Amino acid sequence: MVFAESLICRECSRTYELAPAYFCEWCFGPLDVLYDYEAVAESISREKIAKGPPTLWRYADLLPVEASAATDLGAGFTPLVRADRLAEVLGLGEVWVKNDTLNPTNSFKDRPVTVAVTKAIEFGIKTVACASTGNLANAVAAHAARAGLDSYVFVPHDIERSKIVATAALGRVVAVQGNYDDVNRLCVQLTEEYPWGIVNVNLRPYYAEGSKTLAFETAEQLGWELPDHVVVPVASGALLTKIAKGFDELVQVGLVDSAEVRISGAQAEGCSPVATAFEEGSDDVRPQKPDTIAKSLAIGDPADGYYALREVRRSGGAIAAVTEDEIVEAIHLLARTEGILTEPAGGVTVATLAKMARDGRVTDSERVVIYITGHGLKALEVIATDDPVPIPATVDGFRAEFEKEE
Amino acid sequence: MVFAESLICRECSRTYELAPAYFCEWCFGPLDVLYDYEAVAESISREKIAKGPPTLWRYADLLPVEASAATDLGAGFTPLVRADRLAEVLGLGEVWVKNDTLNPTNSFKDRPVTVAVTKAIEFGIKTVACASTGNLANAVAAHAARAGLDSYVFVPHDIERSKIVATAALGRVVAVQGNYDDVNRLCVQLTEEYPWGIVNVNLRPYYAEGSKTLAFETAEQLGWELPDHVVVPVASGALLTKIAKGFDELVQVGLVDSAEVRISGAQAEGCSPVATAFEEGSDDVRPQKPDTIAKSLAIGDPADGYYALREVRRSGGAIAAVTEDEIVEAIHLLARTEGILTEPAGGVTVATLAKMARDGRVTDSERVVIYITGHGLKALEVIATDDPVPIPATVDGFRAEFEKEE
Repeated sequence: MVFAESLICRECSRTYELAPAYFCEWCFGPLDVLYDYEAVAESISREKIAKGPPTLWRYADLLPVEASAATDLGAGFTPLVRADRLAEVLGLGEVWVKNDTLNPTNSFKDRPVTVAVTKAIEFGIKTVACASTGNLANAVAAHAARAGLDSYVFVPHDIERSKIVATAALGRVVAVQGNYDDVNRLCVQLTEEYPWGIVNVNLRPYYAEGSKTLAFETAEQLGWELPDHVVVPVASGALLTKIAKGFDELVQVGLVDSAEVRISGAQAEGCSPVATAFEEGSDDVRPQKPDTIAKSLAIGDPADGYYALREVRRSGGAIAAVTEDEIVEAIHLLARTEGILTEPAGGVTVATLAKMARDGRVTDSERVVIYITGHGLKALEVIATDDPVPIPATVDGFRAEFEKEE
Repeated sequence: MVFAESLICRECSRTYELAPAYFCEWCFGPLDVLYDYEAVAESISREKIAKGPPTLWRYADLLPVEASAATDLGAGFTPLVRADRLAEVLGLGEVWVKNDTLNPTNSFKDRPVTVAVTKAIEFGIKTVACASTGNLANAVAAHAARAGLDSYVFVPHDIERSKIVATAALGRVVAVQGNYDDVNRLCVQLTEEYPWGIVNVNLRPYYAEGSKTLAFETAEQLGWELPDHVVVPVASGALLTKIAKGFDELVQVGLVDSAEVRISGAQAEGCSPVATAFEEGSDDVRPQKPDTIAKSLAIGDPADGYYALREVRRSGGAIAAVTEDEIVEAIHLLARTEGILTEPAGGVTVATLAKMARDGRVTDSERVVIYITGHGLKALEVIATDDPVPIPATVDGFRAEFEKEE
């Protein structure tokens, strides 16, 4: 049973039938999926969800595809772990880490992709594609392989090598001269030329819905309570806006009482168009040429930047940006305190939390959830140190090397 | 509630109290954990398990530690996905892939380690350590970090660099001149010198119990039915013997009716002491000097090799070994058919399944489960190809490069 009824323009509220379409023909606003929320409310319950699979498909009533037809590698329902050792270092109270590195291809991108590829098959599409900073590439290639679809993933030529190698084993990588914004522009043009489902272009309304499940899981894993404050990394801005939509929908269908969650955003200074607009009190997200090790956040002209800004302001959150050094330091801090290894995007999020704690924009009386969206194994070059000097395989060999430390 | 009662010698059945001990003082046989299975049977049920957390701690009644005290990063309850596209290529019927790359540090080693580190804390131990081929190192460093314990992980100096870099971010790596067997010998000596918990030496009885949960999950995820045949990679042999023990325990506590599962083992030809003994019909596992890209299986003198052999023979399974080329080919086969990227150990398992299918040792009427125990991101050098040549960011640029393919 699918409760999605139509696509609706985020600007002028015109509706369209469910098809591979992504902008309003009238006002060029972005299209979103509209559900029959009354029908969802009748169908959905905490008990029904608890009996569902340990994947994001447990929330199928709020997704725009038929779950029984899902191209499923097990995306979603990742651990939410309480991070007391991290909280202590930051001088905070209750901090939780949503470890979305434990998705099938080790980033949150598996969430939108499992939905988009399932929808592509429903539309009769044979080839899927994407414009990606690396994580999406991995997710699309893997889900396409699993479904037996052809895939083309377009990436900037200079992303982390491990993301290219991992993706090339799963599908077809097209490296493009230029940055993400150039790659994205090319993919928009290609939708006119090929009968493809480009997951974050002409399948974007369905694709983006997958990210809402991060909000659903957060609530369920906190025993159907909402956090006071969440910190979300911002690239295109879609993740943040969809997490906000997710919290709102939980209220709308009666799963939680009220959704007063402060939503904050995290960016790297080397690519901070949304944080800059926030600091300036402006609605105008001015494009920037990215230059940061946080390559998965390196979107200089973010499609949903304006909407992310609006959600942050509406909820009483903030958007901050951090330096490259802060990013690396935060990766190590999360690893040493909680045993979780993140790529730079997660370093941006932890560093932003630290900065907001120092500035008093997050307080020790708040229950805070941060989203760690990509795995450190994909960007080890950022943390690589000198290789350890091998010791002889004897007790004396160990003593000579390590007791001098103490 | 912990139902573990004592340690019991696998050879002479003498029992010992639960302590950091691992061999029988009488006959030097290995020690295992003994439970009060009658009490477990009264406590455990399918319904109770279904209400448990989406981790291996849902099976706490059959683990030797207090679950409420667990050092928990979310190990276990990884996806079991039906692999129809893989099965078709291999000419098999029903094949399932247990994707244990989706553990907290991306290998099955998080299972034994979450148990061992929890037990270490219960014993008042402040420093944990291990002898590792790489994956265990990662798991120990992460769980120790999360628990706030000190850690030393000992590895052969020539393991995959990504495993060293990832582990060094989480804890303290000691690279040792020599192979795994040398490293293991050193760790045995170090238990006499330092008050450490070396997870796979003096905590081994508790540690090894964690791997049973792979059998429990397989049964639960198949709707509380057992598979006909499982294929398990063999390094020390402990994983295979513990999966066998897991199936037996499910019968013993009344969760499933009978446990007639054929259990087969997979090795690389470059390190195949157990497969060789199997082929020769011998009980004598002769040590071998490992030389294979499957570094996580490179244990030339496997501690539980004899017991693995015994389980395989008892259950009517087989142990086969595959070439380096077959390993790489199988990594690509699994990626292209199912979207799952494995390190070479998984390539060994898939290649062994393929070989056994060709030899008729696994048939298309069997329901088969294979265990993919480590992530491809940790060993990308094995599959790296030439980097793709960047195209200009134009439709014509794409056409020029890719339409010539077709």
